[in-house]
Amino acid sequence: MTEVTLPRVLSALGDPVRLQVVRVLSDGAEHLRADFPRAVADSTLSHHMKTLREAGVIFSRPEGTRCYVSLRSELDDRFPGLLRAVLDADANSAEAGSASAFC
Amino acid sequence: MTEVTLPRVLSALGDPVRLQVVRVLSDGAEHLRADFPRAVADSTLSHHMKTLREAGVIFSRPEGTRCYVSLRSELDDRFPGLLRAVLDADANSAEAGSASAFC
Repeated sequence: MTEVTLPRVLSALGDPVRLQVVRVLSDGAEHLRADFPRAVADSTLSHHMKTLREAGVIFSRPEGTRCYVSLRSELDDRFPGLLRAVLDADANSAEAGSASAFC
Repeated sequence: MTEVTLPRVLSALGDPVRLQVVRVLSDGAEHLRADFPRAVADSTLSHHMKTLREAGVIFSRPEGTRCYVSLRSELDDRFPGLLRAVLDADANSAEAGSASAFC
């Protein structure tokens, strides 16, 4: 894995699909393909998973033909509260409906 | 300005120079060019400022030949605590010295 830095983590989180993936994983459990957005093509999702993996956000565990995905606990050790703040902001954003420009 | 969304804000923050800029602005005051990293070329800094401005993170106020830059207060209204969490994570990251990979 490449070096884990805050800019890389933020950049990895800076995408709507990747935020959805992280929200699914935020329960702390391992998840399979079926738990992630179905509207996203497998190849596209794989690309997003790779970005999150390389940024140190997620961990993939292959088992037979399955791939279990989870959040890396080290992320919260390294940047305490960051993911929670991002997910809270994401929730507020979703509640507010479509985003409006500031000016 | 384009639509302000969480992915766009995170993506804008996902760069070491832009994080430095936001850290400078985090005192809530207006700042001039001289307050930002001198090691970064003017043209490069302008590009980063544009990214932050378009994401709704910063506000630029031209006055004569000067350009005053500040954080947009609306950002914290919209995503409460997010910037604080990012800056705290950035501080922890800096204290830890160079980042090490998780694996």
